[in-house]
Amino acid sequence: MALEKYSRILLPAIEEELKRAIATLDHPNLKDLWEMQAYHMGWQGIENNTGSGGKRLRPLLVLLVNEASGGEWRHALPAAAAVELVHNFSLIHDDIQDNSPLRRGRITVWKRWGIPQAINTGDSMFTLAHLTMLRLAEFLPADITLQAVRLLQEACLELTKGQFLDLSFESREEITINEYWSMIEGKTAKLIATCTELGALICQAEHSIRNAYREFGRFLGLAFQVQDDYLGIWGEAERTGKSTASDLLSGKKSLPVLFGLTQKGMFAERWEKGSILPEEVPDLANQLAIEGGQDFTLQLVNEYILSAKLTLQAAKPQGEAGKALIELSEQLLDRKF
Amino acid sequence: MALEKYSRILLPAIEEELKRAIATLDHPNLKDLWEMQAYHMGWQGIENNTGSGGKRLRPLLVLLVNEASGGEWRHALPAAAAVELVHNFSLIHDDIQDNSPLRRGRITVWKRWGIPQAINTGDSMFTLAHLTMLRLAEFLPADITLQAVRLLQEACLELTKGQFLDLSFESREEITINEYWSMIEGKTAKLIATCTELGALICQAEHSIRNAYREFGRFLGLAFQVQDDYLGIWGEAERTGKSTASDLLSGKKSLPVLFGLTQKGMFAERWEKGSILPEEVPDLANQLAIEGGQDFTLQLVNEYILSAKLTLQAAKPQGEAGKALIELSEQLLDRKF
Repeated sequence: MALEKYSRILLPAIEEELKRAIATLDHPNLKDLWEMQAYHMGWQGIENNTGSGGKRLRPLLVLLVNEASGGEWRHALPAAAAVELVHNFSLIHDDIQDNSPLRRGRITVWKRWGIPQAINTGDSMFTLAHLTMLRLAEFLPADITLQAVRLLQEACLELTKGQFLDLSFESREEITINEYWSMIEGKTAKLIATCTELGALICQAEHSIRNAYREFGRFLGLAFQVQDDYLGIWGEAERTGKSTASDLLSGKKSLPVLFGLTQKGMFAERWEKGSILPEEVPDLANQLAIEGGQDFTLQLVNEYILSAKLTLQAAKPQGEAGKALIELSEQLLDRKF
Repeated sequence: MALEKYSRILLPAIEEELKRAIATLDHPNLKDLWEMQAYHMGWQGIENNTGSGGKRLRPLLVLLVNEASGGEWRHALPAAAAVELVHNFSLIHDDIQDNSPLRRGRITVWKRWGIPQAINTGDSMFTLAHLTMLRLAEFLPADITLQAVRLLQEACLELTKGQFLDLSFESREEITINEYWSMIEGKTAKLIATCTELGALICQAEHSIRNAYREFGRFLGLAFQVQDDYLGIWGEAERTGKSTASDLLSGKKSLPVLFGLTQKGMFAERWEKGSILPEEVPDLANQLAIEGGQDFTLQLVNEYILSAKLTLQAAKPQGEAGKALIELSEQLLDRKF
């Protein structure tokens, strides 16, 4: 309830702030540069249907944490838009790197405008993200704005480290579970931890609260990622009977797969022989479960969910925004298995 | 003399600051991410000969302007390293966009490590640039650091606008000379203007001095670019008799070519028929000169050189560093034609 009420107010404000950032490029000379960004954000193009811009989860976290720790969400809007622009810059570059023709059911920027322009569009959005963050200075003292700028840049550096590892995994045989953690800490957890920390930093919450929110964001990110890895093997098949989206088919070295490989059992033996056929998927998913991969992953998911909930409690979210934040985290964490 | 003396001190300090920035990545997990950046900067690889890292012109401008307007160059080192990292990030992405296999006589990052990793390496260097800039706060008040951060981000946005135009020119028939100016203002002049402005900002020089240095940087960038365009058609051939590097061969829509196209004479007629053969180059360069392209370009070069010199005078460069700055600008501007 509280979440629905807040979403109705915050989501349009986020969208407006994002549009304002990109409007800097709205000049006849730069029409396509503006359009590539507006298209990626889901505002342009014939397939402009609901959800084509993504869920805006990250900016929502910034604003809810900000209100729940005693702030005024409008002051945090530049930070909210900035993290969403960073997230989307990374998606534009990811799609080139992964050779993905589609994103949220729509043709990707590189596929439509070519790789050179798509690289530059990502770079441009990256810069707009940081310029947007600087607008915090309209409401905040220079030293708090500087801290926010630094937090986001540090998250970006971790993002590129995580992306480096992810790209390098594709061409490597042996990947340890430790390397996997480094990768998702950088690629997923750090930016979400930065969202929740920014919310608390901007209203100058005390250090213990700020740290609790940061840890909450981190565990939320880790839980979400490990859930995704679980669902990538056992989710879709169980719910729908189809296995077309299985990570086993795409050969993705997700957490359950890495666990299976350490067991050196029948799963590892089959995996190492090369590409898996669609008809093999159900038995192989089952074999991985028998070898302990399913329990191992579920246990981690549950640990991270618990840690996320405990750190959120420790952050003592206040008022209606606090309730909305708890609802949001429950929606994200309590996905069905 | 003054320039030589300063270069001996400043160039190694710049190199050290650049190495320090990238050393953040020096971790066993991230070996290749560090190496790609070190390689691009000219510190790694078998072809590691003099000049393989570039001339470090931009950071030198930051430091000399800083000293010449009453500063202490050590305080400006983070800004000097930051602009050089931004410049190099843009080169890593440019090389992918232009499909260039070589840069400064060495294999480019994308050619050696592939496009996905090269995109990410550029992104990573871009982030390191801004993190390095934030180190200004060790010596400067938060509001000056924020202004410096903003100046650099604004330059980056202009860089991506200029790059957008440059990339779009390749696939367009008609380009106006005005569009060409917009492109080089963004792609070349803005970052150099930001270097000279940063030097003055960091020592909190008065506004008129800061503006004069910014304009000096801008005219220096414009003069340099238009000189390059001139030399790309009439330079190499006159000096060496060879024409292999001619912009006429590569089909580059440089300023003299755009001028020639507006004349709708024999030059334009031949250009519009498509690719030019090596044996046609001397006659076509001559035809473009006859139609006024050479005089037009030379006149602009001379105007920009004069403007650069006048704005540098207006900035009143002080002391030995001021002398070094004047020497540097003369070296850059008085290239032989």
